[in-house]
Amino acid sequence: MATNNDKPRIVVIGCGFGGLEATRALDGAQVDITLVDRTNHHLFQPLLYQVATAGLSAPAIAAPVRHLFRKQANVTSLLGDVVSIDAAARNVRLSDGNTLPYDHLIVAAGATHSYFGRDEWAVHAPGLKTLHDAFEIRRRILLAFEMAEKEGEPARRDECLTFVVIGGGPTGVEMAGTLAEIARHTLPGEFRHIDPAKARILLVEGSPRVLQAMPESLSASAQRQLEKLHVEVRTASLVTAIDEHGLEVTPPEGAPYRIGSRCIVWAAGVAASPLGRQLAQAVGAQVDRAGRVVVEPDLSVPGHPEISVIGDLAAAKSHAPGREPRPVPGVSPGAKQMGRCAAANIQRRIAGQPTKPFRYRDYGNLATIGRNSAVVDLATPAGPLRFSGWLAWVFWLFAHIYFLIGFRNRIVVLIDWASAYWSKQRYARVVTDIEPRQ
Amino acid sequence: MATNNDKPRIVVIGCGFGGLEATRALDGAQVDITLVDRTNHHLFQPLLYQVATAGLSAPAIAAPVRHLFRKQANVTSLLGDVVSIDAAARNVRLSDGNTLPYDHLIVAAGATHSYFGRDEWAVHAPGLKTLHDAFEIRRRILLAFEMAEKEGEPARRDECLTFVVIGGGPTGVEMAGTLAEIARHTLPGEFRHIDPAKARILLVEGSPRVLQAMPESLSASAQRQLEKLHVEVRTASLVTAIDEHGLEVTPPEGAPYRIGSRCIVWAAGVAASPLGRQLAQAVGAQVDRAGRVVVEPDLSVPGHPEISVIGDLAAAKSHAPGREPRPVPGVSPGAKQMGRCAAANIQRRIAGQPTKPFRYRDYGNLATIGRNSAVVDLATPAGPLRFSGWLAWVFWLFAHIYFLIGFRNRIVVLIDWASAYWSKQRYARVVTDIEPRQ
Repeated sequence: MATNNDKPRIVVIGCGFGGLEATRALDGAQVDITLVDRTNHHLFQPLLYQVATAGLSAPAIAAPVRHLFRKQANVTSLLGDVVSIDAAARNVRLSDGNTLPYDHLIVAAGATHSYFGRDEWAVHAPGLKTLHDAFEIRRRILLAFEMAEKEGEPARRDECLTFVVIGGGPTGVEMAGTLAEIARHTLPGEFRHIDPAKARILLVEGSPRVLQAMPESLSASAQRQLEKLHVEVRTASLVTAIDEHGLEVTPPEGAPYRIGSRCIVWAAGVAASPLGRQLAQAVGAQVDRAGRVVVEPDLSVPGHPEISVIGDLAAAKSHAPGREPRPVPGVSPGAKQMGRCAAANIQRRIAGQPTKPFRYRDYGNLATIGRNSAVVDLATPAGPLRFSGWLAWVFWLFAHIYFLIGFRNRIVVLIDWASAYWSKQRYARVVTDIEPRQ
Repeated sequence: MATNNDKPRIVVIGCGFGGLEATRALDGAQVDITLVDRTNHHLFQPLLYQVATAGLSAPAIAAPVRHLFRKQANVTSLLGDVVSIDAAARNVRLSDGNTLPYDHLIVAAGATHSYFGRDEWAVHAPGLKTLHDAFEIRRRILLAFEMAEKEGEPARRDECLTFVVIGGGPTGVEMAGTLAEIARHTLPGEFRHIDPAKARILLVEGSPRVLQAMPESLSASAQRQLEKLHVEVRTASLVTAIDEHGLEVTPPEGAPYRIGSRCIVWAAGVAASPLGRQLAQAVGAQVDRAGRVVVEPDLSVPGHPEISVIGDLAAAKSHAPGREPRPVPGVSPGAKQMGRCAAANIQRRIAGQPTKPFRYRDYGNLATIGRNSAVVDLATPAGPLRFSGWLAWVFWLFAHIYFLIGFRNRIVVLIDWASAYWSKQRYARVVTDIEPRQ
């Protein structure tokens, strides 16, 4: 029997959906896995907007990595920040100076916000990728109402009560819908000088419709549902400037105009982790415009079959027999399926077998807009099944609870949602700092 | 009928137990109350150590002030930081430059940590008063185990696995007991290079016994229960130095010795808010050594019957008929009772009646040590009722859930505790930043 030192060493960078699933898929394998992540938790990112909008507490959607893998004996979990990959020496360098040698490497470092070259906008319009981001957005939302309550000057008060979400993808739609609910259902009655229900919520999207990944009929339905919640949807509108008092929007025709706002949320651009570019340079791979590494059909990088790139960091294609390869969408099922594929290919390589190309199975797409509002586009063997409204919302709700990790989290999220549904309250309305902490 | 502008204006500074209770006691009164607090939530401080030790999420013990008073029409809630009180002009100045005029003022600004003149210790040994403090302590506890897992050098690894709590009052005892539980019950099995159960937990107390406010028999019982959890209790031991690698302890006899530690928690000294000293200077009142304002029997300050000081900011005495006045202990029932007394005295003054002196009713004292361990000292008409162990713990648990504000919070805390009890897990093990944020 192989001793500990003879086992192939696998390093997995990142414990998002891709890294988590790859590690799980290697349960029981005769390998030594080191799972390294910058935080100590796996974050259930689809519900992160609920933390940002005070509907859920952070621990409800964050599971300690160490705890998740306590019973998988071949996993060592490590808190660390990977700064570079040395593909020639086959090791990974951490910010604390340590290196982790590997025989097989899975890079699942994910993505961050992209401000399309306008990084100076970040301070005025935070994005939503980490718990830290969610706390900052929560703080800004709640403080905007507090500032409005104290503000005597009407124009400045209106500025405090104007909320702008930039980007009409699933996160932007969810944020805008939830903001509208907070203003109209949660806060009324609690202020003495303002009427929170008079807050304006705007959703600004550069392309002609929201939820671009959905069929047109569902985009239209989502827009109608948003407008029913009094969200002003501005499609085909480009953001051309952001500062601390608002933003400038340029419509397709006509002059740019200004929207005064003290709370702007960035849900527009996504860029792959800088680690992708570093790796691509090191091995001579290509990156696409978003900084994602262009991978081989089996998710490895060119010339380095021992390195796989998965999830939001990979520009991967789905290879179904008899069909043209198609790009894989940047959604959690895609990352999970890549994780399983990369894990299986490592096991094939260890067994001396050829690897298999990645094939993405599309089960559909769903997005929620707010209380009782959602759109669902399911891929069934009989063709697409599309519905929206209350039924779609219930479907969305149970799908998200089903995929939430950890039994306790599911129960608590269910209770929070049930209580929020009946009371229209949001219980996580906690601001720990009036001033932002850097 | 009086118009809005004719109503007496009451300003309440601080929404801890004292300010909350005073405001509540004025429900229905023909007054205009402005309740100003630095944060947007009332914090249930007795359970703050549970947030610091990853047992509860922050929203479980923090209720938005605005929401608490949404139905009390005479209350305007304001997020603001009071920098000074102008007793002559009868107004309160906020850090944003605004002033709040008052006819009656209740100052319930509470207390903060005191390092007995050694403020440079704060960075190495954070105290536990706010949610921000709790997150910082949680971060340090969890990261100490992570550092130990990565540390190859045995002496440094031991330093990472040594936790020191300074101060043997209720908070210190709770922290030490819970740390022992985390090390021995929560984390084992999750690490590959260390055994968390081998962590050392020390409780250092300057006086000869822990829980000084309790009778000696219960102090002794608490110490035994701590030692059963493998906490090393060092009483009559003064801390004479703290740095980033540990602390120096000086026993009553013998030479000072060093304890290497990367995680030190300060639960020793409490100092009144600086606002107390500012107010005392302005009105010519005395402050005691802890910076608390020495108040008149009716909780007002000398020469200013319109200003009451309550809670941890007040050096108040209890005036029971036929007895010598006795100091009021700095516990939440004391603050609540002072809040009700100050509110009633304001109503008496408005009605042209004489005020009444404050009388503290002592219902007893309780402290928990850990799973199944607590001490209870109840004051009953038939004399004191003292017990410890499992029954005391169940009593402590239900008392705390009973006093928790908000129905939802009670349910969620009960679920969290039940699940923690059966699984020995602590679910809020979330670290958002590896580095501290300033």
